[in-house]
Amino acid sequence: MRQQEPALCCYIAVDWGTSHLRAYCCQLASNGEVTVLGSLTGPGVKKVQTDFKSTLLTLINPWLTQYGPLPVYLAGQIGSSIGWLETAYLACPIRPEQILQHPQSLACEHYQISIMPGLSCRLPGQQFDAMRGEELQILGLCQLYPEYEQGEHLLCLPGTHTKWVLLRDGVIEYFKTALTGELFDLLCHRSVLLPKLPQTEPFCWHSFARGAALSLHQQQADLLHTLFSVRSRQLFAGDSATEGRAYLSGLLIGSDIKAAMQALEWQFPPEVVLIGNPMLRQCFSQVLTSMAIDTVSIDVTAATLAGFARVALAQQLMPD
Amino acid sequence: MRQQEPALCCYIAVDWGTSHLRAYCCQLASNGEVTVLGSLTGPGVKKVQTDFKSTLLTLINPWLTQYGPLPVYLAGQIGSSIGWLETAYLACPIRPEQILQHPQSLACEHYQISIMPGLSCRLPGQQFDAMRGEELQILGLCQLYPEYEQGEHLLCLPGTHTKWVLLRDGVIEYFKTALTGELFDLLCHRSVLLPKLPQTEPFCWHSFARGAALSLHQQQADLLHTLFSVRSRQLFAGDSATEGRAYLSGLLIGSDIKAAMQALEWQFPPEVVLIGNPMLRQCFSQVLTSMAIDTVSIDVTAATLAGFARVALAQQLMPD
Repeated sequence: MRQQEPALCCYIAVDWGTSHLRAYCCQLASNGEVTVLGSLTGPGVKKVQTDFKSTLLTLINPWLTQYGPLPVYLAGQIGSSIGWLETAYLACPIRPEQILQHPQSLACEHYQISIMPGLSCRLPGQQFDAMRGEELQILGLCQLYPEYEQGEHLLCLPGTHTKWVLLRDGVIEYFKTALTGELFDLLCHRSVLLPKLPQTEPFCWHSFARGAALSLHQQQADLLHTLFSVRSRQLFAGDSATEGRAYLSGLLIGSDIKAAMQALEWQFPPEVVLIGNPMLRQCFSQVLTSMAIDTVSIDVTAATLAGFARVALAQQLMPD
Repeated sequence: MRQQEPALCCYIAVDWGTSHLRAYCCQLASNGEVTVLGSLTGPGVKKVQTDFKSTLLTLINPWLTQYGPLPVYLAGQIGSSIGWLETAYLACPIRPEQILQHPQSLACEHYQISIMPGLSCRLPGQQFDAMRGEELQILGLCQLYPEYEQGEHLLCLPGTHTKWVLLRDGVIEYFKTALTGELFDLLCHRSVLLPKLPQTEPFCWHSFARGAALSLHQQQADLLHTLFSVRSRQLFAGDSATEGRAYLSGLLIGSDIKAAMQALEWQFPPEVVLIGNPMLRQCFSQVLTSMAIDTVSIDVTAATLAGFARVALAQQLMPD
């Protein structure tokens, strides 16, 4: 029987993004191992809009009751201008562990709540970009797999927004944001392209591949001019709504990947590191594989928890 | 004093699209002149969803009371699968006046209501497209300006969706749909790109031009990868929300026009005929002019009314 590592600390880690809140009650062992004592999900920043405090406290109250006033660490859009309290954007190039030096405390009754900073970068053509939350996952990636701190790696973090990140010798050089996930959600639920449909039917990989292929291979397949085919295929090519939904997903992810492959900011590598949920990893992996690009698949929850463990450890070591 | 032309008939013309209903109580003179006795606007098909009959009758009831049971002609998305009653899609190539032979009558109490058909076309690469409502505007264009029935003309009809239409010797050869307007609306009101803002401030043409230039001139300016700059410019370049909104409009319209200019379906001509509302015509005209393309500007209401006049006349001449 393996001996139990002594617990170093307990804390509540909250990845509070645009569309979802994901909270974990964690115990960190002295060997760095994280045990998740509980987890829950809640509404994203976009939906909550203002009532962040009561939303959070209501959700985590059972843990506070059971384990006492644990420190709470927040990351993601919750620290943006549309969140609870705007925290800094640290400028790239930067090592992800530098976020550990800039948590911002929040006065919230007698609870110790900290919000992590985000990152910003400048791109060619006077473009700017920003991220919140993914930098913590990248910190977690390097914690779990220190080999990514050596050499050049292109990371792809799909979610509400896809982040394409160039990591060079452990430094985030710059990154680009694509609106892929948010656009899929809006077009699925609020456009004329698809009827309201229950998401019970299985995902149609054949339609997904068809949409991705159109974006990837058809000359001049501008997204604005191809999106309407989601509806016209239902009208004239016999696509069901379920097929249309997967086809739309393929159009968008194909377009996202094609743009990343043609981006001027990097030489697209033969291997991409995917950090996301299983379904999104599978979607991106399938399209990248069809373009002869290898993928490494990292679970986003594992990366997030490893990132928060670094935050908790840094806070432990910090003088009060 | 000009002599009053004898009235040939009165009718109610309803352009019922995805986002708006626009109804006109019309009197057609024997010389073809249309007098608008009244006009009103109402909710689009997407908003009404099912209760089409009572929505329409409530809106036009004052006219029915004042003028008696006038015939009612409907065109637009109201005849689609998401509308009141699905009418045919007539296949291109086709002369727009052929729609006059295919109105579909609707049993609605004792009222005489007809819905016009739409058009469909096949594009290269096994793509399909569909329109409803614009074919009536094109019919009206040819009625108002018969010179467009000769030679080749590229028409651009911006609205909820942009329709790019190749008209050759009075025949609609084919057309392409871009989701430009619907996407603008969704991204303005329901995405993280822009805060809720009152639309009282004047449109910022400078920001519009900046967004359009990025889409038109920056190499690899894929829309998915540039949309987030609407937000990042507010964060890091001092753009106000009003400026961000105009910049987003520029990104989308620039992308729409660039795709049309690169489309394989036609040789982009030195002149484009714009049919739309004044604001959209100005937006598209400004971008096209910046690309050294001439524009002819046609008011969409004038074209719509001229199209419905052809419908009313054809119905008058039809044996019962």
